[in-house]
Amino acid sequence: MEFTIKQIAQLIGGEVKGNENLKIHNFAKIEEGVPGSISFLANPKYEAYLYSTESSAVIVSNDFVPKKDTKSTLISVPNPYLSISQLMAEYQKLSKQKKIGREEFVKVAENAIIGDNTYLGSFSYISEGVTVEIGSQIYPNTFLGKNVKIGKNTIIYAGVKIYDECVIGDNCIIHSGAVIGADGFGFAPDEHGIFQDIPQLGNVVINDNVSIGANCTIDRATMGSTLIGKGTKLDNSVQIGHNVEIGQNTIIASQTGVAGSTKIGNNCMIGGQVGFAGHLKIADGTKIGAQSGVGKNIIQENQTLAGRPLLPLKQHLKLLVNLRKLSVQQ
Amino acid sequence: MEFTIKQIAQLIGGEVKGNENLKIHNFAKIEEGVPGSISFLANPKYEAYLYSTESSAVIVSNDFVPKKDTKSTLISVPNPYLSISQLMAEYQKLSKQKKIGREEFVKVAENAIIGDNTYLGSFSYISEGVTVEIGSQIYPNTFLGKNVKIGKNTIIYAGVKIYDECVIGDNCIIHSGAVIGADGFGFAPDEHGIFQDIPQLGNVVINDNVSIGANCTIDRATMGSTLIGKGTKLDNSVQIGHNVEIGQNTIIASQTGVAGSTKIGNNCMIGGQVGFAGHLKIADGTKIGAQSGVGKNIIQENQTLAGRPLLPLKQHLKLLVNLRKLSVQQ
Amino acid sequence: MEFTIKQIAQLIGGEVKGNENLKIHNFAKIEEGVPGSISFLANPKYEAYLYSTESSAVIVSNDFVPKKDTKSTLISVPNPYLSISQLMAEYQKLSKQKKIGREEFVKVAENAIIGDNTYLGSFSYISEGVTVEIGSQIYPNTFLGKNVKIGKNTIIYAGVKIYDECVIGDNCIIHSGAVIGADGFGFAPDEHGIFQDIPQLGNVVINDNVSIGANCTIDRATMGSTLIGKGTKLDNSVQIGHNVEIGQNTIIASQTGVAGSTKIGNNCMIGGQVGFAGHLKIADGTKIGAQSGVGKNIIQENQTLAGRPLLPLKQHLKLLVNLRKLSVQQ
Repeated sequence: MEFTIKQIAQLIGGEVKGNENLKIHNFAKIEEGVPGSISFLANPKYEAYLYSTESSAVIVSNDFVPKKDTKSTLISVPNPYLSISQLMAEYQKLSKQKKIGREEFVKVAENAIIGDNTYLGSFSYISEGVTVEIGSQIYPNTFLGKNVKIGKNTIIYAGVKIYDECVIGDNCIIHSGAVIGADGFGFAPDEHGIFQDIPQLGNVVINDNVSIGANCTIDRATMGSTLIGKGTKLDNSVQIGHNVEIGQNTIIASQTGVAGSTKIGNNCMIGGQVGFAGHLKIADGTKIGAQSGVGKNIIQENQTLAGRPLLPLKQHLKLLVNLRKLSVQQ
Repeated sequence: MEFTIKQIAQLIGGEVKGNENLKIHNFAKIEEGVPGSISFLANPKYEAYLYSTESSAVIVSNDFVPKKDTKSTLISVPNPYLSISQLMAEYQKLSKQKKIGREEFVKVAENAIIGDNTYLGSFSYISEGVTVEIGSQIYPNTFLGKNVKIGKNTIIYAGVKIYDECVIGDNCIIHSGAVIGADGFGFAPDEHGIFQDIPQLGNVVINDNVSIGANCTIDRATMGSTLIGKGTKLDNSVQIGHNVEIGQNTIIASQTGVAGSTKIGNNCMIGGQVGFAGHLKIADGTKIGAQSGVGKNIIQENQTLAGRPLLPLKQHLKLLVNLRKLSVQQ
Repeated sequence: MEFTIKQIAQLIGGEVKGNENLKIHNFAKIEEGVPGSISFLANPKYEAYLYSTESSAVIVSNDFVPKKDTKSTLISVPNPYLSISQLMAEYQKLSKQKKIGREEFVKVAENAIIGDNTYLGSFSYISEGVTVEIGSQIYPNTFLGKNVKIGKNTIIYAGVKIYDECVIGDNCIIHSGAVIGADGFGFAPDEHGIFQDIPQLGNVVINDNVSIGANCTIDRATMGSTLIGKGTKLDNSVQIGHNVEIGQNTIIASQTGVAGSTKIGNNCMIGGQVGFAGHLKIADGTKIGAQSGVGKNIIQENQTLAGRPLLPLKQHLKLLVNLRKLSVQQ
């Protein structure tokens, strides 16, 4: 596929500075650009590459003023990251064929309901009572337990395991190795101090437009549901304990863990390797830096916090400065 | 299924305050209670819900004195958490049918020994020399390597991978995505400084009544065995290095890692995201707070420690207070 | 199999002190030695066991001088860890049969190219355009996406998932549950603040002689390739973000995470549970202690750093001492 810069600028509503008739057939990182490719500049760290890149076009921000000449044609937009992503989505739509149909070696229970235009890959296991709605894709080696419901146009990648009774919304993406609905970690010591399992009778409910990263683990509730809100995105290897509730449009980076019954609000951004204690409430719009430890409720909305102890970001940065001083103190 | 509060109280040996003839057919969290459901109150954080819940019955502790009237009938027991879990186990036993039989598309080596009343789900792979004892359930998409032994009444959930020669006890539960017996992480630089693999010739031995969470990784020993003691419970995504030995009745929360050859005692409780260095000995009854770093032997039993540096809990909390002070110091 | 100590000493170029005619048929840890077994002593922590072990032979370092008599014959070599590993490799080569052939219930696309002397285990899924070169082993329940390339003599263990277009080199080992090529974690907020997926159009390229631990996640690049250099070894549950580049002969311990676009050099050693922010450059030969947080570029080669804040090792240790003092300060 090949487009002119003019066509591309029209698609993303950008303003062109330079030759708009050059042809683009590929994407490239700005530091690896070659003629015929289009790049973008969003992070100022990469500005130096703008003046040396061989990319035919670079998408930049409206308010960006180049300090030198560039070989590339520039396309100015309000949000370069969003525009390149729209462009890539368009490219992906044109180039990637959606899988449809039922392959050989599939195990589907007789009473499972499989919608039209769905894909069931080989070695996938569809238990009794399962519903897979229209347009969803179940990749190979996937396990869907009893009564699992998969909404419309959802992609379940190879090797995902979803336990009995869990519910996945529309337009979700669940990446390989994710385990949805394993037993919550609950044990009660008996009279001899020996830990006995507490049955986990609830489920997991994942709302629409959610992305779940590879090898995430989301435990089923003891009673009721572990909930993931609409449009929320989990990176790889995130651990969500039983009865946790995550709000809408919240982003959680890799290797973060949320202990049982904690409730995280809407529009939060959580860094990687963060730990949340159990039974907390975290206000909407909270931002937490990577590797932080969250041990108390966060009541006030839209704070940015970091560290252990968890502090407002500026105070955390000040603490790091003072710790450096402390490290050279006799 | 439906029981009267009287029947339930008899089952768990509780004392009833209120109407004992109400009928219960479901479990609910106390904050989500509806008529016909039973809840419990163990964590004082949730006491406020006791006075507003619509649950027909709430299990409380013998020594709990309500501050206001409740709509619910109360059932007093010594340990509410244990009692609700007994009740849920009873419910689960009555309601959940155990899977038995061999499904289509299963690969079983000719010389594998498969006991009575076992379940082999589709797309499970049973290698040469494997033994699966009576009553165990092997869910779909599971891999059991050469000479693996699975004890009695053990559940191996979908997609678990167990490498050659590993041994799993009776009444164990291994959740999806767990990998048992992958090679330990051992490399020795050769004369050019290039890392060469050290063969990992040992195995993993998991004793009876152990639970292993989803996506855990337990590496095989270089020589001898990596050991998990009787009744020990691992949460999701716990990493156990080669030649580690974990004692009996020890609890390890999610995303904790234990480096090679460390020995953790009996009756320990380890928080989430803790890291243990290699070649350590940790005494029986040790409790370690979440996100701690353990770099030295712990000789004295029954200590509660936390943080980095690892300190007695009170001292760790004092350090957090002093770090907060340091964070506002010029 | 059985060898004399003399034969073993010749194989590893060691000097014998004691009876060289004893027969060895097994490996044992020095603390669990029995007659007929061979052990090694590399870590001085284990020296006490040398004087009590029942192992017939112990491999020690050339410069090691025993403080007491031993029951065992000693074999002195320059690097005991390397020698025992050579010996174990030899043993493994003689004892372990390489799997070859195509088992039943395999799904192989018509245009896939499968080399000679390869193994395809049951329930493995080989998509269109895949190449598996000579001598490679694809264990059961594995998924290879469209156009995936697997080099020569590589082992893909059970349940590995490799997404479309990814490339794996020769002599690699990828352990169970690893997910290679899932989408990078990239979202851009639209005009309503709702996060939209950024298509991830790149791939993952893993060079020769790389080991990837169980349940690792290596995300595909947004554009271009996420790269793992020749001879690099990742422990279990390591997370590698999109567009990350790891150099050659670098070691990364378990549960470490590397955020998007960071470049780590050659011959680095990274401890467990370390977190790297995105868009960093880490110099060759860098060593990072366990649980560290790396938030800035590391320009100077061959440093050893640790902690949060990240400090030179000595300074970090001094900080820990001062934090202990701070923890008892009123």
